[in-house]
Amino acid sequence: MANLPPWLILDPQLQSWLAEDIGRGDRTTQALWPASVDADGSPLGQAELRLKQIGVIAGLPLFQRVFRLLSAKAQIKPLVPEGDYCPPGTLVAQLEGPLSVLLMGERVALNLIMHLSGIATLTRTYADQIADLPTQLVDTRKTTPGLRILEKYATQVGGAVNHRLGLDDAVMIKDNHIVAAGGIGSAIRLVRQQSPFPLAIEVETETLEQVQEALDAQADIIMLDNMSVEHMQQAVKMIRQPSPGETGYRAKIEASGNITLQTLRAVAETGVDYISTSATITQASWLDFSLSFTPPLG
Amino acid sequence: MANLPPWLILDPQLQSWLAEDIGRGDRTTQALWPASVDADGSPLGQAELRLKQIGVIAGLPLFQRVFRLLSAKAQIKPLVPEGDYCPPGTLVAQLEGPLSVLLMGERVALNLIMHLSGIATLTRTYADQIADLPTQLVDTRKTTPGLRILEKYATQVGGAVNHRLGLDDAVMIKDNHIVAAGGIGSAIRLVRQQSPFPLAIEVETETLEQVQEALDAQADIIMLDNMSVEHMQQAVKMIRQPSPGETGYRAKIEASGNITLQTLRAVAETGVDYISTSATITQASWLDFSLSFTPPLG
Amino acid sequence: MANLPPWLILDPQLQSWLAEDIGRGDRTTQALWPASVDADGSPLGQAELRLKQIGVIAGLPLFQRVFRLLSAKAQIKPLVPEGDYCPPGTLVAQLEGPLSVLLMGERVALNLIMHLSGIATLTRTYADQIADLPTQLVDTRKTTPGLRILEKYATQVGGAVNHRLGLDDAVMIKDNHIVAAGGIGSAIRLVRQQSPFPLAIEVETETLEQVQEALDAQADIIMLDNMSVEHMQQAVKMIRQPSPGETGYRAKIEASGNITLQTLRAVAETGVDYISTSATITQASWLDFSLSFTPPLG
Amino acid sequence: MANLPPWLILDPQLQSWLAEDIGRGDRTTQALWPASVDADGSPLGQAELRLKQIGVIAGLPLFQRVFRLLSAKAQIKPLVPEGDYCPPGTLVAQLEGPLSVLLMGERVALNLIMHLSGIATLTRTYADQIADLPTQLVDTRKTTPGLRILEKYATQVGGAVNHRLGLDDAVMIKDNHIVAAGGIGSAIRLVRQQSPFPLAIEVETETLEQVQEALDAQADIIMLDNMSVEHMQQAVKMIRQPSPGETGYRAKIEASGNITLQTLRAVAETGVDYISTSATITQASWLDFSLSFTPPLG
Amino acid sequence: MANLPPWLILDPQLQSWLAEDIGRGDRTTQALWPASVDADGSPLGQAELRLKQIGVIAGLPLFQRVFRLLSAKAQIKPLVPEGDYCPPGTLVAQLEGPLSVLLMGERVALNLIMHLSGIATLTRTYADQIADLPTQLVDTRKTTPGLRILEKYATQVGGAVNHRLGLDDAVMIKDNHIVAAGGIGSAIRLVRQQSPFPLAIEVETETLEQVQEALDAQADIIMLDNMSVEHMQQAVKMIRQPSPGETGYRAKIEASGNITLQTLRAVAETGVDYISTSATITQASWLDFSLSFTPPLG
Amino acid sequence: MANLPPWLILDPQLQSWLAEDIGRGDRTTQALWPASVDADGSPLGQAELRLKQIGVIAGLPLFQRVFRLLSAKAQIKPLVPEGDYCPPGTLVAQLEGPLSVLLMGERVALNLIMHLSGIATLTRTYADQIADLPTQLVDTRKTTPGLRILEKYATQVGGAVNHRLGLDDAVMIKDNHIVAAGGIGSAIRLVRQQSPFPLAIEVETETLEQVQEALDAQADIIMLDNMSVEHMQQAVKMIRQPSPGETGYRAKIEASGNITLQTLRAVAETGVDYISTSATITQASWLDFSLSFTPPLG
Repeated sequence: MANLPPWLILDPQLQSWLAEDIGRGDRTTQALWPASVDADGSPLGQAELRLKQIGVIAGLPLFQRVFRLLSAKAQIKPLVPEGDYCPPGTLVAQLEGPLSVLLMGERVALNLIMHLSGIATLTRTYADQIADLPTQLVDTRKTTPGLRILEKYATQVGGAVNHRLGLDDAVMIKDNHIVAAGGIGSAIRLVRQQSPFPLAIEVETETLEQVQEALDAQADIIMLDNMSVEHMQQAVKMIRQPSPGETGYRAKIEASGNITLQTLRAVAETGVDYISTSATITQASWLDFSLSFTPPLG
Repeated sequence: MANLPPWLILDPQLQSWLAEDIGRGDRTTQALWPASVDADGSPLGQAELRLKQIGVIAGLPLFQRVFRLLSAKAQIKPLVPEGDYCPPGTLVAQLEGPLSVLLMGERVALNLIMHLSGIATLTRTYADQIADLPTQLVDTRKTTPGLRILEKYATQVGGAVNHRLGLDDAVMIKDNHIVAAGGIGSAIRLVRQQSPFPLAIEVETETLEQVQEALDAQADIIMLDNMSVEHMQQAVKMIRQPSPGETGYRAKIEASGNITLQTLRAVAETGVDYISTSATITQASWLDFSLSFTPPLG
Repeated sequence: MANLPPWLILDPQLQSWLAEDIGRGDRTTQALWPASVDADGSPLGQAELRLKQIGVIAGLPLFQRVFRLLSAKAQIKPLVPEGDYCPPGTLVAQLEGPLSVLLMGERVALNLIMHLSGIATLTRTYADQIADLPTQLVDTRKTTPGLRILEKYATQVGGAVNHRLGLDDAVMIKDNHIVAAGGIGSAIRLVRQQSPFPLAIEVETETLEQVQEALDAQADIIMLDNMSVEHMQQAVKMIRQPSPGETGYRAKIEASGNITLQTLRAVAETGVDYISTSATITQASWLDFSLSFTPPLG
Repeated sequence: MANLPPWLILDPQLQSWLAEDIGRGDRTTQALWPASVDADGSPLGQAELRLKQIGVIAGLPLFQRVFRLLSAKAQIKPLVPEGDYCPPGTLVAQLEGPLSVLLMGERVALNLIMHLSGIATLTRTYADQIADLPTQLVDTRKTTPGLRILEKYATQVGGAVNHRLGLDDAVMIKDNHIVAAGGIGSAIRLVRQQSPFPLAIEVETETLEQVQEALDAQADIIMLDNMSVEHMQQAVKMIRQPSPGETGYRAKIEASGNITLQTLRAVAETGVDYISTSATITQASWLDFSLSFTPPLG
Repeated sequence: MANLPPWLILDPQLQSWLAEDIGRGDRTTQALWPASVDADGSPLGQAELRLKQIGVIAGLPLFQRVFRLLSAKAQIKPLVPEGDYCPPGTLVAQLEGPLSVLLMGERVALNLIMHLSGIATLTRTYADQIADLPTQLVDTRKTTPGLRILEKYATQVGGAVNHRLGLDDAVMIKDNHIVAAGGIGSAIRLVRQQSPFPLAIEVETETLEQVQEALDAQADIIMLDNMSVEHMQQAVKMIRQPSPGETGYRAKIEASGNITLQTLRAVAETGVDYISTSATITQASWLDFSLSFTPPLG
Repeated sequence: MANLPPWLILDPQLQSWLAEDIGRGDRTTQALWPASVDADGSPLGQAELRLKQIGVIAGLPLFQRVFRLLSAKAQIKPLVPEGDYCPPGTLVAQLEGPLSVLLMGERVALNLIMHLSGIATLTRTYADQIADLPTQLVDTRKTTPGLRILEKYATQVGGAVNHRLGLDDAVMIKDNHIVAAGGIGSAIRLVRQQSPFPLAIEVETETLEQVQEALDAQADIIMLDNMSVEHMQQAVKMIRQPSPGETGYRAKIEASGNITLQTLRAVAETGVDYISTSATITQASWLDFSLSFTPPLG
């Protein structure tokens, strides 16, 4: 299963998201229990988180953490495992804690789990199409600003593998870089001298000539960008043939560009290692959940 | 037209979003012009931003600002006004600046304009349905964490009016608050004593009895939540009749809950002042743009 | 009673205020118990917080929190309720905790409670003058930079109602805005199109002609700025008369400008809803407290 | 004249204070010029800053900087020197810049200069009482949280000398420290071993016996706390007499505790080097200024 | 040559380092030109940066930027290229700008260039030993907290290649990980499922059996940890032989552990691709520079 | 023994240093226990921290705190006191906690204790040379950016006394300041008027004439910069002679400039109060430690 970085990394963001919603104070909730010094002092209540649509649950640990950051007294008990594909009506978690805390954290917690579960659910739809093939689905850097780690976590939960996380953990040489450097070969040489050595170098290619150039320069990953299925088949064949002199060089192959649910399987069958698409994030709708309080309220 | 807060407010977020993508450095771009001390020293280039689908442009000032934060030398020239509804292929902006800067800022700038334009475009579709009626479309607090201001700006660009921006600029008394306070009347009284006096107080109602309670307590805004069109008609009638003794009290009416493109117009025709929906944000796909560099590259 | 936002919102400020005082370390306190790794390791001590003047206590929860942020071992026990009007010599709280913690937090905690109690005490003096009238005392945006939330909390504790908290939770159209927009009517129209719909729109008026313009444009709140009591009486009459055609429109009235303890009651008797004054913050002196340690010290 | 730290140190605070007031955006100002992308695009305007009371001007550089942080186009021209004692009606500065910028920065800029000038004015009143004597007036650590540097700058402008700025730039051994360390001598020894060597060590004394102990332990500064004028005279004599064996030790003397405008001069005449009081900050009212826009507005 | 990330990434650190030194204000410099409102207003001066030892210059762009962050008026003109190996006495840069700015930024700017040049110089000594061999020198994660990017930049300037920059841009499976996962094979499998696919997987091996396990699991990089030169020779042979069935798999080899200037060449001659050492950072002394002002001073 | 500021001051730095290493997540560790929601959920393990060289331990409280910030479950038990001079092989601490936490915090914790212990060890070597003399060893402002407090703590642990911590807690008038102010006397006068009064004023002198000027202006500390031992002897004599008229003025004396282990004792024997050197920080190598996990691992 997918994994999240430690809370030390995520907490500052979660806190800023709570602050974005609460602003100078929750005028409604704070007023209801005026006798309590802080949110912790309000009466205890219970609530239930239910799924309203069919889909994949992603973001439960974050849902829990949002309330925990507001109060150590909030107890959120997940009832289904993260990543489960659940029917509508599923009781996903039980909440207990000071009512002020539950009411103040509700919107941020729901926004997170609804957004991430939407991505995980759409990703699952894509991943299932090619589940029996060795090709893996990967995501891209088209992510909502500020949510890179979490949206990529959601595509993992949905069944994809992450592509690079930023401009610093892999090298991607695109058409503009190639022109600027005077060719694929010189671009790779320039970058290889200056990058941390474990970083993979990927090159975007649009023609078979470019594929050959990338092979000659021993790119670690060759992206076939916007190619027809026929061209991809030829490219895969070129890349997979034993390298001359048995140098032990073998590039990974990524197909990219205008992949749809309709074309996904045909592309996978060409034998590429990875198919990347931004659709699982940019085309995803939020998955609907409800949070309902159970009487008696304090 | 919609408006953005000053850059002093937005810049820290834009900077953090660039940092999220760049991380410890753009390994590809930095390597291409090793002689230049900083990004500003790379050769100048030009690029074009084009729309690939039909839609409403939202986020052009942010697209510009992203590059400006990387370098004072970046010149981004918008060619269409923010908020325009444009056909596929529209040349939206011309870019000129150091190539490193253009390449390093590209992804964040595109992610922003694609995400926001997607929201503005879907909002326009909704708003157009009721453009000839006095009822106005409004958004909700279901926004992607960290993007509240910008997504609400995008719905404005699309033709909606913003609902409250957070928990602190209006009061919304929901079912759980009502139960906790022992009724609509006491909830309103508690809150009115402690909120800044200009803040509006809105109450969520699900029955005509609750509408009457809200009227008795002189709520500023009455939300009709998940009511049938028939119930809404009755509620509107109750609320619009002259208040006894001409006290000058008259509540605004908001319809909410499961509004779809199909039901939107019928709801508006009941005469409510506002119809709120989260769909324009939670159901929006990104609008597609391309950024292509124009030769010669430096 | 007044309420504070959750600690998640306030803690970063409290921490920065402790850091402002402690800087690179408390050279005196840290040296006294050199064997202890951190402040928690110093011997336990007790201290008493006493009021030295007559006045209203405001800021006890913040006084507690300052020590708690330095150590989970600090126990601060309030002995009077927040908002009480107490005589000199009142024992306000008992403190117990590691001596380093008590000594290091002392100044910041005292500065907060003395400053806020001073504001609450002066506010009470004003509020008491009109306690038997329906008119309410409100504050303004003249607050010490960085202390907006807390100073407005203190005026609430003292008996006032808060005016808007910032430039974003209500609209205030002043003389300069009116000139720039070409009149009260067009200013209100411009703003109403672009603000979140629940936000109230207030207009500053200096003449009866302007009052009429504000009424015509249906401003939510009409401020009578620097008017004589006679002019205010006329304005109130204009505003309170039934609107033609029973439109249900009725503006709230705020009196403002050069309100003093001497004029306050006469102004209230004109029947305005609110009287705003910055004096309760800008003219307040700190209320004096003492913190004395009780032997034996560790 | 007093001096401020570089803007690199102050800007983050000024920015946070603007953000405190602007929040999610200035709903009034932003709406008035909807065609302009940012505040810089609004029409130019002029305004005048005038003093409404008699007093000392403090904070003009900060007043300027607030507008500059909002826009490079704002031109603020001071017409009197910082620190001048001016009559009511004095034209203090002329402002020119985009109207949005002037209107959005107005409140924060005024709050700063009014608060600081109030402190400088009250400090001047105290300082003038002893201007012909060698004794100097000093401030304390009783400052509004978050404003330590600026309020101490204001007392300097008013004619005082600063005492220590925090817990880390000098050592102050108070009664509780003395008890905890087992006497003045051992307290000084403990601290001297661990503090940066240039830091001065001050000891609070309440009796002549304690003064002698402080002398024996060679404290750098001896504070006479809450002593009668007669006791102070004796203490000054003890401290000023040549040290035995001409060791070259000579402590500075600070009088403290319940200093009022009435007692100030008598205390100074005892020959102490410094008299410290928090009153110049904790008892100061804001000095009144007005900012009025000059037609024509854009 | 090495490259730095954009200033947007580095500026916050440089600013915090200036703040660390300046604290609440440079008491010496600020006092010298009391008439100037800010540092920019002090008279202009010139200074020269000279190298006092033989060594490699690293950090000139940072040296420049420190002064620029204090004032746009500071002009720092480098006279030798970054990375040059220079004799003692070399005039490295000329400075011109407001004297306050030059004096306030001096220490931070010098601390940076002295620290980084020390690292670059020691790295050059190591790199020169194996300059004629294909083996490359690499650094480690033993870097001073907070200086990871800059110290790794300095080793690049000195002639090394960077190893991974953090725990997130490559996978390193160490002995403890292997035990926890139940073997090298299962550790690699677990990690490969969850990491971004472009990330390289490196395994630490101490015996030839472990080398074989790493080969079987197709690790991307095999580290030979603390092996004798003889064992390394055998390991290199095992790893370099053609993989069975020509699968195109070929691991990179890294030697690590107790590498000294004495053993470096012998290790390189075994044919490993990389030799990693922390010594170039952890054993480096600062390189000495002087900054002297040239009369006349303002 | 030396002391650290409270964690409230240090935690933000420790957190940023963990974030620097962990980045977007520890790809290796997070993958090993995929079933655990967070690092706390991984199986418990034990490890031992051992010293590999002879040296002084400095930084144990920080070593502990790093793990504690990752998880409340981490238990780090120190087995030797901070500041001890230990032989190679010493078992310094035992660790127990969730394996993910121990593995994720390992590098940062080790980098800190190795760096600081290296400084403490070298400082001890210097301090021991003059341990029987009254002269004290002091450090300088040549510290690694971002580590001022901690490196100065380490020199304290090693036996030195701290010099000023920044530009704001003491005044140091150097040659350039003197020229700018028109002489030592006027420089001291300018600064004394504007600095907080407890701050010491130190003057750098290179000749006996300058020493006399500093004496005439009653500098608190006189630095003898780069003087020969003979000149220093003369200077000490000038400064130590009784001041005329028994004014009780007696300056402290600091020797500085090119102090080496060879010259240190001779300089101390001239009778100066302090000898400052940056060598204990800028010439220090890291002290070597190992962290080894003890089976069985979870």
